Amino acid sequence: MTRSKSRIQAKVPRRAARPVPSHPAGPTLGIIGGGQLARMLAQAASRLGCATVILEREAGVPAAQVTDAVITGDWNEPGSLVRLGRRADVVTLENEFVDAHGLASLEKTGRALWPSAATIDAIQDKLRQREVLVAAGLPVPCFAAVPDRRALAKLGEMLGWPIMVKRRRNGYDGKGNFTLRSAAEIGAAWRHLGAVENSMLAEVFCRYRKELAVMVCRGRDGSIATYPVVETVQRDHICHIVSAPAAIDSEIAQRAVDIARRAVDAFGGVGCFGVELFLMPDGDIVINELAPRVHNSGHYSMEACACSQFENHVRAVLGWPLGSTAMVAPAAVMINLLGASGGSGRPHGLERALAIQGAHVHVYGKARSARGRKMGHVTALGATVGEAMRRARRAARLVRFGDVS
Amino acid sequence: MTRSKSRIQAKVPRRAARPVPSHPAGPTLGIIGGGQLARMLAQAASRLGCATVILEREAGVPAAQVTDAVITGDWNEPGSLVRLGRRADVVTLENEFVDAHGLASLEKTGRALWPSAATIDAIQDKLRQREVLVAAGLPVPCFAAVPDRRALAKLGEMLGWPIMVKRRRNGYDGKGNFTLRSAAEIGAAWRHLGAVENSMLAEVFCRYRKELAVMVCRGRDGSIATYPVVETVQRDHICHIVSAPAAIDSEIAQRAVDIARRAVDAFGGVGCFGVELFLMPDGDIVINELAPRVHNSGHYSMEACACSQFENHVRAVLGWPLGSTAMVAPAAVMINLLGASGGSGRPHGLERALAIQGAHVHVYGKARSARGRKMGHVTALGATVGEAMRRARRAARLVRFGDVS
Repeated sequence: MTRSKSRIQAKVPRRAARPVPSHPAGPTLGIIGGGQLARMLAQAASRLGCATVILEREAGVPAAQVTDAVITGDWNEPGSLVRLGRRADVVTLENEFVDAHGLASLEKTGRALWPSAATIDAIQDKLRQREVLVAAGLPVPCFAAVPDRRALAKLGEMLGWPIMVKRRRNGYDGKGNFTLRSAAEIGAAWRHLGAVENSMLAEVFCRYRKELAVMVCRGRDGSIATYPVVETVQRDHICHIVSAPAAIDSEIAQRAVDIARRAVDAFGGVGCFGVELFLMPDGDIVINELAPRVHNSGHYSMEACACSQFENHVRAVLGWPLGSTAMVAPAAVMINLLGASGGSGRPHGLERALAIQGAHVHVYGKARSARGRKMGHVTALGATVGEAMRRARRAARLVRFGDVS
Repeated sequence: MTRSKSRIQAKVPRRAARPVPSHPAGPTLGIIGGGQLARMLAQAASRLGCATVILEREAGVPAAQVTDAVITGDWNEPGSLVRLGRRADVVTLENEFVDAHGLASLEKTGRALWPSAATIDAIQDKLRQREVLVAAGLPVPCFAAVPDRRALAKLGEMLGWPIMVKRRRNGYDGKGNFTLRSAAEIGAAWRHLGAVENSMLAEVFCRYRKELAVMVCRGRDGSIATYPVVETVQRDHICHIVSAPAAIDSEIAQRAVDIARRAVDAFGGVGCFGVELFLMPDGDIVINELAPRVHNSGHYSMEACACSQFENHVRAVLGWPLGSTAMVAPAAVMINLLGASGGSGRPHGLERALAIQGAHVHVYGKARSARGRKMGHVTALGATVGEAMRRARRAARLVRFGDVS
């Protein structure tokens, strides 16, 4: 299907006059995507009496099990998005890699989409994302566009080896990144990343002291609620552990929250946004990247905060008041449960993990496990991060996804 | 369809050898009934990667929106129960008025049912329920069977006017009760209750100091987890406000918990049970009645306790370890949101209620409102019951279900 090349409008589209087959007890939220983020959004929406309908390519996805209705289709095909829009009062998304032209087509039908196509378009291209942040006066690592292979050698000299080379589009969980240590590796990097001209950006390799993240929720009226600053630890480029609150001075925390808030403002974002930051050795904070959706670094909020990121995202996109992000316990730790190998999606050791008092185990309902695949997570609260960490670890290490080899 | 009259077996049935079309990521829980209790059970089950299938007569019921599959059928028809059993690993229920013979038929197919048919059978007849409690040495109000109308006059003399006359079966939210003040009202009472011979029981009218409730969760292995003692306030015989913990001495609380635990043991109960108690002016505690299911008096546990009654019920019936019932805040108050009148099920004022920070609003997704119908609830936590109460009230009074007249 030919994609519309019309310019992406930044204005808020007028609401369609067309009647919506609405749910009798509340609005219907359409979600593009049906993975675990959509699942947890649908769970939050249902508590508020809000119905959900998801758009997904495959059957049996995590969100399909907890939602009212599923539309089978490709989210990169504008017709599918329009079909979703007909069934919902408001549409949102759980992943930022949806083609922005298709999203704009949806908006043109008059259906409200939050975050907007313009926001998604600016964020999903990492180069544009950086440019918007710089224009807003926000701190980011030194970066440059990579017009072609030859430019990489010069950029390595300018920025200093090693440099991070990143796909501008569709990279996540480290899949679109390459740490380039010298000009000799340029060929390997280019092939590994499937690079073509103008598809990459390069930036300094940040030797950060800590990785931080802040979930920011912004309403349709511009009101903002920020979650506590958390520390994230990745393993093999995938989120592994999240600790709340981060062990940083309140002055640093304040700066981090301020930067995150301004970043979301800069994109006119509506809904929850995950803002990933680096705390540098000299105390500076730079923005690594944003995700225009609920985020792994915010899962702890389900048990640890008065209003979870999922519920707040639903409130925000529906135009409802935002809920309190205050923590209900002094500390919380979340540990991801990743697949150890392929096989059935049924967790081994779940019962033993459930016996760990205070461990909140979440299983996403994926039919198949795969190595490194996000299959669930465990959150524990505590009087201190240390206590929460011990509790969460005790449970997490008992669970295994994938065939035991 | 003819109902089987075979004797209800108290033994645990052997597991069927028949393969179950199980969910790849976890077990499938079958739920008899699809109202708000089933909805909240399904929400808890899904977080644990457990699929659900419900059996309901009507379309569009609260649980249908959040579950994988719905079987349309009459839960008093054994064939429907058996069909449900084929689709699930374990079956449970959200209301105790299911015909016990049908439940026994389900058990005979080898499908695990918790609570068991024997437990349900003993509890759903209020007279038998009382007899089991007395046999276990537990305190109940003085009561007697009512063989016919004439017996009521004599019972009034013996027990002292007024007396409570109750339908033995199918009474809830006060619908099957009548406060009989004198022999002159016997005719009115008999007609109001649709009484026939041997269908009623009579008991002393308890002038209680407080109404208390304890949720007790009992596992398949007999392990028990008890929730805090709460105080409940009814309005027009329907649960109105629940305060946790109840404002009583720890000695009274201890006795209440002990009595509740022993009561559930007496019925061999598995799953969550709501035990309603009267605290008498002299400090005695008597059991009013039990409900063999999750209960209105336990909804606060979703936000206030480490593991909610819904999650613990799922854990118990699946044979998983029970979770901690500890409160995560000093106090909590739940206020029911009842329909003010008929009309659409969409709440008025929801947005204003959501603006009350710390108010957790739950909407059950019922298509239609009716006067006195349970449409949702609000829970608030607090440093004290007073603070939680103010917060919950502030939100609850903003919400209205039913057409504004």
